[in-house]
Amino acid sequence: MASLITDDFLLSTGASRRLYHDCAMGLPIVDYHGHLSPRDLAAHRRFDNLAELWLEGDHYKWRAMRAAGVPETHCTGAADPYDKFVAFARTVPQTLRNPLYHWTHLELVRGFGIDLPLNRDTAKEVWDTANDKLQAMDARTLLDRFGVALVGTTDDPADGLEHHRLLTTAPGMLPDTAVVPTYRPDAALRVDDPTAMRAYLDRLAVANDSDCSNYLGYVEALKGRHGAFEALGCRSSDHGMTVMPDVAPLDDAGAGRVFNRLCDGARPTAEEAARLTTTMMLTFGRWAHEAGWAQQLHLGALRNVHPRAMQTLGPDTGFDAISDDRQAPGLVRYLAALADAGTLPKTVLYNLNPADNYLFMSIAQSFQGGHDAPPVPGKMQLGAGWWHLDQIEGMTWQLNAVSNLGLLPRFIGMLTDSRSFLSFARHEYFRRLLCDLLGREVEAGLLPADWDLLGELVRDICYRNTVRYFGFQLKGRWAEWS
Amino acid sequence: MASLITDDFLLSTGASRRLYHDCAMGLPIVDYHGHLSPRDLAAHRRFDNLAELWLEGDHYKWRAMRAAGVPETHCTGAADPYDKFVAFARTVPQTLRNPLYHWTHLELVRGFGIDLPLNRDTAKEVWDTANDKLQAMDARTLLDRFGVALVGTTDDPADGLEHHRLLTTAPGMLPDTAVVPTYRPDAALRVDDPTAMRAYLDRLAVANDSDCSNYLGYVEALKGRHGAFEALGCRSSDHGMTVMPDVAPLDDAGAGRVFNRLCDGARPTAEEAARLTTTMMLTFGRWAHEAGWAQQLHLGALRNVHPRAMQTLGPDTGFDAISDDRQAPGLVRYLAALADAGTLPKTVLYNLNPADNYLFMSIAQSFQGGHDAPPVPGKMQLGAGWWHLDQIEGMTWQLNAVSNLGLLPRFIGMLTDSRSFLSFARHEYFRRLLCDLLGREVEAGLLPADWDLLGELVRDICYRNTVRYFGFQLKGRWAEWS
Amino acid sequence: MASLITDDFLLSTGASRRLYHDCAMGLPIVDYHGHLSPRDLAAHRRFDNLAELWLEGDHYKWRAMRAAGVPETHCTGAADPYDKFVAFARTVPQTLRNPLYHWTHLELVRGFGIDLPLNRDTAKEVWDTANDKLQAMDARTLLDRFGVALVGTTDDPADGLEHHRLLTTAPGMLPDTAVVPTYRPDAALRVDDPTAMRAYLDRLAVANDSDCSNYLGYVEALKGRHGAFEALGCRSSDHGMTVMPDVAPLDDAGAGRVFNRLCDGARPTAEEAARLTTTMMLTFGRWAHEAGWAQQLHLGALRNVHPRAMQTLGPDTGFDAISDDRQAPGLVRYLAALADAGTLPKTVLYNLNPADNYLFMSIAQSFQGGHDAPPVPGKMQLGAGWWHLDQIEGMTWQLNAVSNLGLLPRFIGMLTDSRSFLSFARHEYFRRLLCDLLGREVEAGLLPADWDLLGELVRDICYRNTVRYFGFQLKGRWAEWS
Repeated sequence: MASLITDDFLLSTGASRRLYHDCAMGLPIVDYHGHLSPRDLAAHRRFDNLAELWLEGDHYKWRAMRAAGVPETHCTGAADPYDKFVAFARTVPQTLRNPLYHWTHLELVRGFGIDLPLNRDTAKEVWDTANDKLQAMDARTLLDRFGVALVGTTDDPADGLEHHRLLTTAPGMLPDTAVVPTYRPDAALRVDDPTAMRAYLDRLAVANDSDCSNYLGYVEALKGRHGAFEALGCRSSDHGMTVMPDVAPLDDAGAGRVFNRLCDGARPTAEEAARLTTTMMLTFGRWAHEAGWAQQLHLGALRNVHPRAMQTLGPDTGFDAISDDRQAPGLVRYLAALADAGTLPKTVLYNLNPADNYLFMSIAQSFQGGHDAPPVPGKMQLGAGWWHLDQIEGMTWQLNAVSNLGLLPRFIGMLTDSRSFLSFARHEYFRRLLCDLLGREVEAGLLPADWDLLGELVRDICYRNTVRYFGFQLKGRWAEWS
Repeated sequence: MASLITDDFLLSTGASRRLYHDCAMGLPIVDYHGHLSPRDLAAHRRFDNLAELWLEGDHYKWRAMRAAGVPETHCTGAADPYDKFVAFARTVPQTLRNPLYHWTHLELVRGFGIDLPLNRDTAKEVWDTANDKLQAMDARTLLDRFGVALVGTTDDPADGLEHHRLLTTAPGMLPDTAVVPTYRPDAALRVDDPTAMRAYLDRLAVANDSDCSNYLGYVEALKGRHGAFEALGCRSSDHGMTVMPDVAPLDDAGAGRVFNRLCDGARPTAEEAARLTTTMMLTFGRWAHEAGWAQQLHLGALRNVHPRAMQTLGPDTGFDAISDDRQAPGLVRYLAALADAGTLPKTVLYNLNPADNYLFMSIAQSFQGGHDAPPVPGKMQLGAGWWHLDQIEGMTWQLNAVSNLGLLPRFIGMLTDSRSFLSFARHEYFRRLLCDLLGREVEAGLLPADWDLLGELVRDICYRNTVRYFGFQLKGRWAEWS
Repeated sequence: MASLITDDFLLSTGASRRLYHDCAMGLPIVDYHGHLSPRDLAAHRRFDNLAELWLEGDHYKWRAMRAAGVPETHCTGAADPYDKFVAFARTVPQTLRNPLYHWTHLELVRGFGIDLPLNRDTAKEVWDTANDKLQAMDARTLLDRFGVALVGTTDDPADGLEHHRLLTTAPGMLPDTAVVPTYRPDAALRVDDPTAMRAYLDRLAVANDSDCSNYLGYVEALKGRHGAFEALGCRSSDHGMTVMPDVAPLDDAGAGRVFNRLCDGARPTAEEAARLTTTMMLTFGRWAHEAGWAQQLHLGALRNVHPRAMQTLGPDTGFDAISDDRQAPGLVRYLAALADAGTLPKTVLYNLNPADNYLFMSIAQSFQGGHDAPPVPGKMQLGAGWWHLDQIEGMTWQLNAVSNLGLLPRFIGMLTDSRSFLSFARHEYFRRLLCDLLGREVEAGLLPADWDLLGELVRDICYRNTVRYFGFQLKGRWAEWS
């Protein structure tokens, strides 16, 4: 059987192929948002086998395996790594038309040069070949292999960032890959859970070496960490929430009262929790604006919908759905409040419900321009197809919403949002899709066959806009590309 | 003018044609959900004319006719059957791009070998030819003609199932078509209407030959009927509701109090009605799990939106819209409660609002796997494009949601949901669409040209998954296909 | 570089080209809904330069320019017209895949015969050439150039309609273009703002020369203006609201009480405001029915989401988003109330949230037919892709919703909804898209190659349905086309 991953994979027209091969291929990968472990990066982690590299923490695969009837022992459980791998291999032919089918084979080819359809028959050969190659590989090799110029990790303000410090200062660290932290204070907003909150405050107090037992101390510590993150190259905050609350913020006194009750172990009302969240989100937005950061907002996930699974397996194990909460009221209110105050930072809106792509993009476009001098082109962004939408259909919808309601050439492009070193292949996947979309429209006469213009567009979206938007500094062999 | 319904209708690529002609064509039809009359099936009903077979009870056609300006007399009214037929024939050219245009011509060809575009000029010829052929046809002939191996009807627990009993036990009944009832207790949940409820309880008491004047008697009678349905081959319950209520269930005492007030003729509050509904839905879910049945949930229809039409014409006459109720909160709560209790049955979610396909599929995928031993592959299903979505665009969206968020090869495939013996042609329509979708992606290099793998996929979706999922027993010439 | 706007622009198949060139090209434009100024029409306005004609009031362009980082001075501000034009020209290459890219080049070719890609390099040449040609052009020339047989303006009941009177009665006025007013009483429903309301009542009293200081006087004056509009050719009312309220109407006494409090300067509660709005909307619907008008409902816009921009720049300056309010409850309630009362007029529903196309169309179809004798074919319409949806993807979605749930051949087609005399080119854009859609499906075997049938379909949608639906009277060289 012929290879799936050919040179022209996803490229259906001559124009598509020309754009990809001449313009997109080989560009550096600036992966500004993901979940790679700073520890693994700093340690140049090695992987014993493909199960460790591929199945560990990958809830996309677990979800597919469960739907195929694979028992939990072979997903998150204690089964032998090879048995888990075989269970996954048997699932792969059932992922036809699911992004996993393409990702899996693209990663095998790009990561290991293995050009085989993965299934029960080939499982052993793939396992042996990949594991053999893994002996000569580590995190650094993998980053080099994919041409990763930058990795943005996702970090809690209470995190000490020691691995980031090592990555920045220690000799011999990833010479061609900048690693930057991202400030993600979700845990600092567990305002519905006094126990979690108090435990968090203890960690935060240690991280900032300051008193967090009152509201102003808490805010100050978070601000202190903001500076510490910035010192290590952070250019962005990030927030995950089902929906932005549609409530007014509290003043310091009001916020202090709710905070104190939390510290006393009392659970605030839903209204109080929402108002404290809004208060802090406006604060984080203002800080991002002051620092010239972008803020990333991940909205629309309904997490941990399966209580029993949550109890036994914990979060991030593949039990997260899409929300149908109304997004506009809270989001508009939040952005309007920041814009009115002159403190709206660059903002990337990630949306998980495909019914809302146009909604989000129409909101983003309503806050372009404004109070910045000079104005920031493409200030408000609809983020790339996220999570359940990170596949051809979802990515196409996102690109179409961006194009039809805004300026595609200002789009900051792809990110992996992944926990795996093989997922960088998704940048290639995105680039092929983008070039195919453009190429098809050139051949249909919808776009001009202006190769200079289109080439610039492709290069801008693939890495240049990203570097400019966040203000990243690349290094080593990619330094001149910033 | 060339025929519309050619051998390669809908099949746009060589790969599509190969898949359809080699794999899909001629497979048995397992129509697990529809609204054919058990009486008609048992009586081997004959039809005098095409109006009787085609226009009786078909609200899709009435809806189109009304939009074309046809007066109600010629839709649901008392006009002469031929005049009604002509009114429909004149409407057909106005249904270009509507599924009715394809269905109509496919049914004329497959049902009667009539290959003419239906319009005012051909109406007489089509009428005469079809009616002539109808003289030699009956329900059994039609089922044979389409290769229908199984028909699932939709039945109320208070229904005596005498026609089903006949179909199962009497000699000479449909030798090649299994007919199974489906347990649909919508009428048992009219908890907002004391009068309807009391009338229903009287019918239920007769059907189960037991006392239904108190809550436990009511539950027991419904359980009794559950067993009676199972004894006649039922493998599934079915529920139609705009939205699953997002409320806590009642305990027996609380449910009993609301039930008693209903029996006394008092209308419960909206909250009480919702909680009693939830209580019963959890009970039905548990029973389905115990019996190894699947439960089917039809969500998102806003029924009878035109009060005057409802008053004069009654329900199911073509005045039903799509709902924009928020579906996630109630549905997630319901599935989570069953999953927590270890009583979540196989579940098929049918969604009427196309904006919610991804939402539903993301929820379904969050409840795969779980407490069953052995696990049930494809336990949670997004049902085929339903009602207003039963057309190329809607079916494609559904297939894409299933593929992108789950495992297409586990999909249990098509059903007619119809009141007409000619609608089985929609299985062919679906199969052509499916093969075309796959074939186009093979030719675009998105799917491997692995004909064995693709052939199995097609056969699984067209009938095998269905038979396995429900546990149906086929009979006669199809017996060996189970 | 080859031209973008070729003869076969957007026409991807032979069938598409045949349909467009043989059937659609050259048909009159019946632009039944837009925002051209009656004063400009009556004055045969001339334009000094392209900035005046193109950038004045065009919030689509401003929105794109802001996203490109153009400062507000060059959008709505006081910058020199040529500098503004250059700022726009520099933005155009960034609008690739945005409708502005196609509109811009189509308008340059059709308006001025300029076939150049607009960008910073060509800006001067385009500016000079267009301005030169503009010296010999005025509103009348432009209407003739595009073959505009009818323009529907949008007018407030308190407007004196003096320009419309001139256009109708004065000699030498637009000989081939009927201009009709549209009754849009949005300002009469500012029931949440006593100050605005009282100012409005003063204007209304003058316009109708009657007392508006009490509720019945207000209603009577609005009715008086209804008649005055009709006398000048008005065939339609129009309403813009985020969502139709889901509340019961008030009786005259109740409405009078809320009205009186408004007149006393008191702000009504949200509930009172909604109920008064509903009361008036039902009244407007009844009047439209009595007059044989169509009512147009523009739903789903979330206007002026950027408070600071609203304060400094005012409304309609490009700060409007899409709403995710639930549309079904209020809309169904409204249509049902009119249908029950036998006063439901022809209705065109415009929807701004693409997630709701099917929802709206399913609701529209539920109110077809009914109490009219004779029935009105296509009585309920889903309006053409509106505002943010006025582009290929949005128009395709709208056409697909109309087709799949209703009767495409009854669709009343395209409108510009524009403030610019160059926007009539969008009718050509729509016609090409329509013919391409149909042509592609003919070549794919989904539609019969019945050129008579398809030709009628194209002509019906392009202008005939519109003329019949509204009952317009065309004039001059288009008179015989009515």
